[in-house]
Amino acid sequence: DSSLKVFSLTSNPELAQEIADSVGVELGKSSVKRFKDGEVQINIEESVRGCDVFVVQSTSNPVNEHLMELLIMIDALKRVSARTINIVMPYYGYARQDRKARSREPITSKLVADLLETAGADRVVSVDLHAAQIQGFFNIPIDHLIAGPTLSDYFLDKGLEDVVIVSPDHGGVTRARQMADRLGAPIAIIDKRRPQPNVAEVMNIVGNIEGKTAILVDDIIDTAGTITLAANAMIENGAKEVYACCTHPVLSGPAIERIENSAIKECVVTNTINLSDDLGTDKVVRLSVGDLIGESIKRVHEHRSISSLFD
Amino acid sequence: DSSLKVFSLTSNPELAQEIADSVGVELGKSSVKRFKDGEVQINIEESVRGCDVFVVQSTSNPVNEHLMELLIMIDALKRVSARTINIVMPYYGYARQDRKARSREPITSKLVADLLETAGADRVVSVDLHAAQIQGFFNIPIDHLIAGPTLSDYFLDKGLEDVVIVSPDHGGVTRARQMADRLGAPIAIIDKRRPQPNVAEVMNIVGNIEGKTAILVDDIIDTAGTITLAANAMIENGAKEVYACCTHPVLSGPAIERIENSAIKECVVTNTINLSDDLGTDKVVRLSVGDLIGESIKRVHEHRSISSLFD
Ligand SMILES: Nc1ncnc2c1ncn2[C@@H]1O[C@H](COP(=O)(O)O)[C@@H](O)[C@H]1O
Ligand SMILES: Nc1ncnc2c1ncn2[C@@H]1O[C@H](COP(=O)(O)O)[C@@H](O)[C@H]1O
Repeated sequence: DSSLKVFSLTSNPELAQEIADSVGVELGKSSVKRFKDGEVQINIEESVRGCDVFVVQSTSNPVNEHLMELLIMIDALKRVSARTINIVMPYYGYARQDRKARSREPITSKLVADLLETAGADRVVSVDLHAAQIQGFFNIPIDHLIAGPTLSDYFLDKGLEDVVIVSPDHGGVTRARQMADRLGAPIAIIDKRRPQPNVAEVMNIVGNIEGKTAILVDDIIDTAGTITLAANAMIENGAKEVYACCTHPVLSGPAIERIENSAIKECVVTNTINLSDDLGTDKVVRLSVGDLIGESIKRVHEHRSISSLFD
Repeated sequence: DSSLKVFSLTSNPELAQEIADSVGVELGKSSVKRFKDGEVQINIEESVRGCDVFVVQSTSNPVNEHLMELLIMIDALKRVSARTINIVMPYYGYARQDRKARSREPITSKLVADLLETAGADRVVSVDLHAAQIQGFFNIPIDHLIAGPTLSDYFLDKGLEDVVIVSPDHGGVTRARQMADRLGAPIAIIDKRRPQPNVAEVMNIVGNIEGKTAILVDDIIDTAGTITLAANAMIENGAKEVYACCTHPVLSGPAIERIENSAIKECVVTNTINLSDDLGTDKVVRLSVGDLIGESIKRVHEHRSISSLFD
């Protein structure tokens, strides 16, 4: 359908291409540059009048640059009469700032939702939001896609035996349960606790991992501190081997080095966040969410085309 | 008055201190840091409940970082019940993107106005907006301060003789006229034109500069291309000496080197944009707009306190 267009900004050009391929369109032409003083300069280089436009941009590091590019692109699209402006934000930055952890903090993930709506977004597509509640921060429709099956299927295809799915903390048990269901495996939980104030945390493993292939699962791996400590604890407690996986490879600071030096055999991630080609470790395996997102866009667009028959 | 608070973000800490001194308060305590993945982390470290809060932040380079810090700070202030949130934005970034110069461009300075209002700003104080029309982009009050007198007074104090104020382009003639009035001097204009398409521009000087001390005045000096070419043309056409001045020293890319190597004797700027201590040239003279802004804050606040008697 010629009225569906997919544009890429700078965060995930390869994923954007995969999404366009999956949808069956060429990527839209636009130029995203910087003026000499660092200001974002955007120009849309083809007509989008009356089109359903999908803009692919994760608000990964550098998050503020990526977010401002996105807001400015939305502004430009609005001014040239796109029919709908749909934001494909595979990784939703600032998602962890979703409540006041301390008394005088902002709730930046709600602010981001408001900024997107103010700029003119009509719909958001995102993958594995850190908290599902973020959907409620929007007054526009948000499609929340789940990468769990993509990760699970990779491990299913490997034909691993005697698997246990491990949540690295209490907050991630539901996610572990879903993967365990798909793999027909039991779960275990790492139960960190501080025996007394100012005493180091103790890592206690709830569940049986002895002699098993453990798969640690999380939504975000950031500095990889938790996950690599957990992996090492698994091996010390008798696991046969340890895999790790997550949807969003933030991989800040020491993350790569920690993964490389840990007991983790493979760290399986998706391309919601674009990683450099040469990461400095062979342990990171990348899966694509291009088709997952492409299919969802096709569903949204078909639905719109049908409903527009009744406009 | 204890209910007036001034907070600084990271763009202009020295100017913020000068403003607080001018108003007669201590700077408010807050922490502005980055998480490992580059996300802004803000915490307000004193109560602001019921206060009129002024936040000092220019959206200078890196503009997207500075703008997001500001939006997140506004969000945090809103959530702790500040009475009013007043944005002191001495330099308004993205001001040059104030109209569609090409057909499919955004109007980012209007977007910025909308983002500030959405985050929760109640009032904006800014200095020498690139276009006065930007005031109309806001639905909240905006105080537009003028740094011309600060620059003029510097030259008056120097006791220069036989001065001519020069506008480097047609758009800046009003600004030159105002400075000329204050200095009791005539004006001249650089009249650039392209004799034929694809032929280099010719710089024609309208007005008498022969044997005179020329002062070039602009609102922004960015890459300093225009102003240094203009200065050199002045000398070639018989000016005795050339000063340059502007409100906002953006000074991108080759600007410092160009100024250093030009005929400009002194380049007088204000601190709406923070410059590094060691600029690599002695030609740049810095004036403060701290009192200008401080006085304006006192006026706003006194007015509020009086009107609140009738609440
Ligand atoms: N970018 C970030 N990096 C690390 N921690 C963060 C980040 N953003 C928010 N947080 C903190 O992470 C905590 C929330 O994480 P969680 O409990 O996993 O939802 C809060 O204490 C936040 O202050
Ligand atoms: N940050 C920037 N640096 C250089 N040029 C810009 C910038 N932002 C906008 N512009 C361009 O500057 C022109 C407007 O400048 P002016 O005519 O001085 O108002 C437009 O053509 C804009 O595309």
